[in-house]
Amino acid sequence: MYKTAVIAAALIAATASAQAEEPENYIKYRQAVMKAIGGHAGAAGQIVRGKVSPEGALAMHADALAALNADISSLFPEGSDFGETRAKEEIWSDRAAFDKAAGDAKTATAAFAAAVAAGDKEKIGATYRDVGESCKTCHKQFREKKN
Amino acid sequence: MYKTAVIAAALIAATASAQAEEPENYIKYRQAVMKAIGGHAGAAGQIVRGKVSPEGALAMHADALAALNADISSLFPEGSDFGETRAKEEIWSDRAAFDKAAGDAKTATAAFAAAVAAGDKEKIGATYRDVGESCKTCHKQFREKKN
Repeated sequence: MYKTAVIAAALIAATASAQAEEPENYIKYRQAVMKAIGGHAGAAGQIVRGKVSPEGALAMHADALAALNADISSLFPEGSDFGETRAKEEIWSDRAAFDKAAGDAKTATAAFAAAVAAGDKEKIGATYRDVGESCKTCHKQFREKKN
Repeated sequence: MYKTAVIAAALIAATASAQAEEPENYIKYRQAVMKAIGGHAGAAGQIVRGKVSPEGALAMHADALAALNADISSLFPEGSDFGETRAKEEIWSDRAAFDKAAGDAKTATAAFAAAVAAGDKEKIGATYRDVGESCKTCHKQFREKKN
């Protein structure tokens, strides 16, 4: 009886740990991350375009964008390429190109955050456009269109 | 000629400034903020449930949630109650109740971020559930259902 309980507990622990390692768990996670990126980018855009001016919010959105884009590649591990995902096979078959696109998103969002921190209005506009370009370029190449 | 240009410039400046002040501009902005909140909450949930464990990401999501929820009330100024919005009239007609609900979201997300910063696993789970409750309660009371 005790032995069975110990084995059961060990099995549950092993299952929980194995579950945490399943690459396909990253599908849902990265979709949530992309949603957060879309939200911050949209919110930042409203501020950059002068539509609203909530105090301190631009830096918050810009910093979050940089943090969320710091390592996009890691959200697409091997084995997370099936099921409910619009991720294209090229992410894995042409990894170098994907890593380059993800790196561009990191660079663009970091530059935007730096421009916001510096309060350089012209640079803020230019780097914000670069962020949009890096999103668009990567999605065009590596994300399936919606049906 | 010079005078006309000066007047034109002044008018443009006045229009731009007036545009920035339009309360209805907050509709699009707050929808983007809510999207970001949804993304971070979903991403944090995947980590809290042990589905994924991207390094350092839980603190990033928790801090962003706290920052995004720091002053929800300010995203609903008077005059932003028409057009493409699911914001209920009660936000403005029962402002004290709305401010209370927005304050609860601030408290809940701050507590979640603090639990994550402290690395207290039990508190992380409990405070994450409180965050979800504060979202649900406020939406139920102050957001129209989707048609």
